[in-house]
Amino acid sequence: MNQNRNVNRQITLNSRPHGAPTLSNFNLVESAIPEAGEGEILLRTIYLSLDPYMRGRMNDAKSYAPPVALGEVMVGGSICRVEVSNHQGFEQGDLVVAFSGWQDYSVSNGEGVIKLDSAMENPSYGLGVLGMPGLTAYMGLMDIGQPKKGETLVVAAATGAVGSLVGQIGKLQGCKVVGIAGSKEKCDYAVRELGFDACLNHNDADLESQLATVCSNGIDIYFENVGGKVFNTVLPLLNSKARVPLCGLIAQYNATDLPEGPDRMGLLMGNLLVKRIKMQGFIVFDDYGHRYDEFQQAMVPWLMSGQIKYKEDKVSGLENASAAFIGLLQGENFGKLVVQVGPEHLD
Amino acid sequence: MNQNRNVNRQITLNSRPHGAPTLSNFNLVESAIPEAGEGEILLRTIYLSLDPYMRGRMNDAKSYAPPVALGEVMVGGSICRVEVSNHQGFEQGDLVVAFSGWQDYSVSNGEGVIKLDSAMENPSYGLGVLGMPGLTAYMGLMDIGQPKKGETLVVAAATGAVGSLVGQIGKLQGCKVVGIAGSKEKCDYAVRELGFDACLNHNDADLESQLATVCSNGIDIYFENVGGKVFNTVLPLLNSKARVPLCGLIAQYNATDLPEGPDRMGLLMGNLLVKRIKMQGFIVFDDYGHRYDEFQQAMVPWLMSGQIKYKEDKVSGLENASAAFIGLLQGENFGKLVVQVGPEHLD
Repeated sequence: MNQNRNVNRQITLNSRPHGAPTLSNFNLVESAIPEAGEGEILLRTIYLSLDPYMRGRMNDAKSYAPPVALGEVMVGGSICRVEVSNHQGFEQGDLVVAFSGWQDYSVSNGEGVIKLDSAMENPSYGLGVLGMPGLTAYMGLMDIGQPKKGETLVVAAATGAVGSLVGQIGKLQGCKVVGIAGSKEKCDYAVRELGFDACLNHNDADLESQLATVCSNGIDIYFENVGGKVFNTVLPLLNSKARVPLCGLIAQYNATDLPEGPDRMGLLMGNLLVKRIKMQGFIVFDDYGHRYDEFQQAMVPWLMSGQIKYKEDKVSGLENASAAFIGLLQGENFGKLVVQVGPEHLD
Repeated sequence: MNQNRNVNRQITLNSRPHGAPTLSNFNLVESAIPEAGEGEILLRTIYLSLDPYMRGRMNDAKSYAPPVALGEVMVGGSICRVEVSNHQGFEQGDLVVAFSGWQDYSVSNGEGVIKLDSAMENPSYGLGVLGMPGLTAYMGLMDIGQPKKGETLVVAAATGAVGSLVGQIGKLQGCKVVGIAGSKEKCDYAVRELGFDACLNHNDADLESQLATVCSNGIDIYFENVGGKVFNTVLPLLNSKARVPLCGLIAQYNATDLPEGPDRMGLLMGNLLVKRIKMQGFIVFDDYGHRYDEFQQAMVPWLMSGQIKYKEDKVSGLENASAAFIGLLQGENFGKLVVQVGPEHLD
């Protein structure tokens, strides 16, 4: 964390990845610390959130958000301190959640910047359990998934930022919760620490038969973070009237071409039709940003009482963000991945 | 309509089709008229409904309903007269909706048999605009599609039993309605008689560019009856937060194998995710049977006032049912296909 008060380190998009990103797609550059103009604030980044959706922004493709331009700073949510304020709504020293990207310093007009309690114990939680991933888990499960007591909920990426919360919230709603994760260690954690009823390793050759055995009454809700072979395994087990909140498809983010045939698009639609399944994509801020308070009122007590547990995977130093992000897409993180860019308080 | 008071003609499943059904898959047999036992009624079929879902019942595959067994009478909804009643709830001469299949006579214990007004002017409407297809159109559009004024609604099979009603209900909700149908004649009817804003012929080579031009603001609701190439054309035009009620996939009912690759299942899911689309299958009686009254209260006044128009394609004689059904799967019908099996009243 060699944050310097004279230099602004930035990680920019050097080139667009073809398939999985490599370190050469990123560039660490240094520039002058920007100045806050009239009505603006200067932010110093403490924590940077790394999330799978960022892979999409590295492509030059039309999506719900514009791509990052070549040479531009990579986008991302962050926890920051206000260093200088020329804005009525903020004071120097304020702790905020911002969308300031992969850099030490940034200037904002205050739009979309949310103040936190300055003495908050774990400010990085604002990027996870109390932030975007938490809201995603809560709204995707509660609003689209509509869990009912006794139903079977399967969640992929079970120890990830979103999946770990989906499963725990599902338990609190009385569901039988089955996780799918990428290692025995993660699965053990999901069952022992998070209270999942079961957790399967998607690298096991017999995942299909294991899942069918564990989900002996079928699957009522599948919270989709992954796609690919995990979805292939889940699809035949979905019950009539199942709900599939579509939150992410990390298994296909690095794909450069469509997979080989046969073409199963009609097969998927046929399954949705015959089993009367609802599959629904959502983007949390656009669809549920206005319901943040409702989420917080549920989540804060769960977190304080220990009913919801939360694990972070903290990487130190902005210079390590690119490698950590590449690892995230391979499932190497264990818990919510955040980069500590600078100290919480300056001396 | 050589209905005979001594013989029960039945059309049975002779063999399972491989691909499109042929006449040899059906068998016309004659048997004795069954007798109504204690608590039962004897029904004489007047109208038989022919609907695309019946193709699925001809396969030996697990689905939401069991397949028709070889040698068994083909299933189907019907309008019948009660000929003999040993059941407290029915009297001789009652006009009813039943699920008595492709035959002249049948016996029922009354379960699922609904009484109609015995003097109803168009009893066959109970198989269409006031029956299963009407409820399907209304609930699929209103409950899953959630139409809003000014939105663009696209409906395939635009002059079919369901599609023609979906489009007209959409107009009554203030939507811009674009139909897709299989001939110029059908398209002209959809625009001139049903009041659609536009209707495109899916056999036109430039369907894709035509649809993009007509739907210049994208598509907010796509009521899916068809699948296949029509869906391929619609998918790129779907707007953020679009809704896709999945009612039928007639284009793939006769398919014996999955189409050649590439595999677009992940592509579809990626579209649903990025555009936050809801795609939801439904089976009308299971999901919405309990809301029939609500539907009827909306539909009857629309029909009486002429705000909703309804066209039937009536085929005469049970012996012609198989050929008519084969044609239905090719889109040869024009309007709701019903077979008049016997006279409304006997002399």
